[in-house]
Amino acid sequence: MKEIRVGLIGFGTVGKGLAATLNTQKDRIRKRVGASVTLTRVADIGVKELPEQYRSVTLSHDAGDIFTDPDIDIVVELIGGIEPAKSFILTAIENGKHVVSANKALFASHGREIFAAAIKHNVEIGFEASVGGGIPVIKSLKEGLVANRIESIRGILNGTANYILTRMTDHGTPFAEVLKDAQAKGFAEADPTYDIEGIDTAHKLAILMSIAYGLHVSVDDITTEGISKIEPIDIDFAREFGYRIKLLAISHNHGDHVEARVHPTMVPEDHMLANINGAFNAIEFIGDTVGDILLYGQGAGMMPTGSAVAADVVDIGRNILSGAVNRVPALSCQPEFIGEPHITPLSELTCPYYFRVTALDKPGVLSKISGIFGQHNISIKSVIQKSRHADEPVHIVLQSHSASEADVVKAINEIDALDICTAPTMKIRILIDDED
Amino acid sequence: MKEIRVGLIGFGTVGKGLAATLNTQKDRIRKRVGASVTLTRVADIGVKELPEQYRSVTLSHDAGDIFTDPDIDIVVELIGGIEPAKSFILTAIENGKHVVSANKALFASHGREIFAAAIKHNVEIGFEASVGGGIPVIKSLKEGLVANRIESIRGILNGTANYILTRMTDHGTPFAEVLKDAQAKGFAEADPTYDIEGIDTAHKLAILMSIAYGLHVSVDDITTEGISKIEPIDIDFAREFGYRIKLLAISHNHGDHVEARVHPTMVPEDHMLANINGAFNAIEFIGDTVGDILLYGQGAGMMPTGSAVAADVVDIGRNILSGAVNRVPALSCQPEFIGEPHITPLSELTCPYYFRVTALDKPGVLSKISGIFGQHNISIKSVIQKSRHADEPVHIVLQSHSASEADVVKAINEIDALDICTAPTMKIRILIDDED
Repeated sequence: MKEIRVGLIGFGTVGKGLAATLNTQKDRIRKRVGASVTLTRVADIGVKELPEQYRSVTLSHDAGDIFTDPDIDIVVELIGGIEPAKSFILTAIENGKHVVSANKALFASHGREIFAAAIKHNVEIGFEASVGGGIPVIKSLKEGLVANRIESIRGILNGTANYILTRMTDHGTPFAEVLKDAQAKGFAEADPTYDIEGIDTAHKLAILMSIAYGLHVSVDDITTEGISKIEPIDIDFAREFGYRIKLLAISHNHGDHVEARVHPTMVPEDHMLANINGAFNAIEFIGDTVGDILLYGQGAGMMPTGSAVAADVVDIGRNILSGAVNRVPALSCQPEFIGEPHITPLSELTCPYYFRVTALDKPGVLSKISGIFGQHNISIKSVIQKSRHADEPVHIVLQSHSASEADVVKAINEIDALDICTAPTMKIRILIDDED
Repeated sequence: MKEIRVGLIGFGTVGKGLAATLNTQKDRIRKRVGASVTLTRVADIGVKELPEQYRSVTLSHDAGDIFTDPDIDIVVELIGGIEPAKSFILTAIENGKHVVSANKALFASHGREIFAAAIKHNVEIGFEASVGGGIPVIKSLKEGLVANRIESIRGILNGTANYILTRMTDHGTPFAEVLKDAQAKGFAEADPTYDIEGIDTAHKLAILMSIAYGLHVSVDDITTEGISKIEPIDIDFAREFGYRIKLLAISHNHGDHVEARVHPTMVPEDHMLANINGAFNAIEFIGDTVGDILLYGQGAGMMPTGSAVAADVVDIGRNILSGAVNRVPALSCQPEFIGEPHITPLSELTCPYYFRVTALDKPGVLSKISGIFGQHNISIKSVIQKSRHADEPVHIVLQSHSASEADVVKAINEIDALDICTAPTMKIRILIDDED
């Protein structure tokens, strides 16, 4: 019986998920692949002993033991972060090993170097688990939708941020309190910056855009705003206007330039993305042939991520067995056709906006504020003015028709400089479905 | 430059969609595959001339011209129906051609014979387009979810039926009227039987089950009920109970036996499947590793189906180019491991039910009816009794707790035999999420 041998670097949550998956699904995978896929080595600096069920797996504390083992076909990197993960992966490639990893931060910032090395050494790089956890989003994009020009990508790509927004929406709890609770429950990390500031989402969007458009997109190309400034009051007003607030990754393909942004977004409440709750992820593609496609599932976690890593291992294993390595290029396009991205400047964005202006409740304040919006070509669709206590500043909440980001920035700067304004104006972009 | 040559049988709606896709996406596919994928021949008995843009494509009226052309690598069958499609496909296979088809009726009833022939002649069979139109559902199941035991499948797999139910729900229009309107608009066929009676959905479920479970499931294994008996009043009562009525394909994997059924189902209104509207399709899988996955998109139509057919053509083309034919087996499992299904008898099904009893408005009627349910171990959760006019029969609508189908059939037979009952009792099964 043929066998595919796997070496795993990093026996943390996802590493354990992969080990468990390859164990539990051993017979199922063998019946499908026609060969065994076996975890033979684990390297983890902090693990003293592997659990009982991995008796036949060799443990070491040195990743080098995995690269230099001539019997290992595929190296799985699941330690995360940039270094030493990057060096490990490059060394594995130089040793002729195929690589599977869930490391979105690494691929979104150093992908070009890694993919170039893989091409040079004719090995495969699998990274399905880097976006959308167990959802087969990268395979769908590279293979299922191959006969499509991808017109747009929109997604809820970070489960922690979506969990926090869902809790804030359902219970009216302030951001800081939900975050603390999420940390206590293990749904958010001790340092939640990547999740709540949209950086993790931007990593994933960079990967999706690279594949969808055949461009070398890096995380630095993506405008990123997080959710930490969203207040329960914004969620309430969103509801009054018929929206839910979601942290979205958004990209539109304009041919010679592409949009790339991550920010809190007001999503119409009957849109599918508005109804993705808790820690779930969803990715929507619009293709010129297929139309609207949405893929939904758990975007993180030990087992869902293990499912995606195992799928990559099996995929590469099948290529090894049938002598078809790099049957599908890592970034979908043949390397010589991958281009450089031209990113639409954010100032050129046009969309409807939600504004929450905080001002003293004096006569003429609404007229002054709406006057400034008018002077900057921002046409207002509806206004709600609410004060909670007589002596407190009021919230003037406005929904605009489509306006340009450049105009919006100027108007807000002018409004925030007014004496009567007591806090910075909140702006949230509104998703429109006909913007495609 | 290498080239993959495609011969197309059937230049109807989907055939035109494939031709248009291969034309429009020619450059995009070449940059990804590293070779051209070209439509070189079309056979259609009723087409006199191909449109201008297909000048280099050879048209004939004889499918035999395609099988015998030594230059053709892949034969695409898009005429639908059992014969002559089946003979065409078998002849193509015997001539060593790979085959792509969207023909769900054929695969669900004669799949075993076709797949056996393909194995014998070492050719590939692509049928992504047979389920869920442009949604890459089969590829996801065979590859993306390979490291999962699929626990259940639930799907809205027929766009016509879902369009009709959506219109009935949104506008309160009776079934017959919506159907007539859908036929006028081209959303339903002149003979809508396959769509509205659940047969098309059952074909698709048989295909999904075969792949998911590694079993030879045929359409005959699936209990099938359609939507033609649903009345607007049922939709109204569903809403009062917090449900929407959807035609669902449902299968649960119990290990030594599997459920397989297609029927109108009351879906809790906050479930994603309740919110799939119009002609869209959605397929939900629960895998033991990945958890809950849902794939959504257009389940039919010229271009979405063309997208899926083209993806199969590219997939097989890649295998031809890299010498990896049958890299992934057609039914996911290696042929020697595919088993025979043991289908759970419908009588053993247990779920909550909705009942609408139509009876004369006489004293004691509710007591009589609820008494019969009680005698058959069917415990009632809630009852609504509504009469529209004084002299007309009333609707007694009951929602039960989980009950056995065998008991339900007995109870309804007894109730319908009562003198006071003026029309057959309507029963609709209720989806529960914790039944998994």
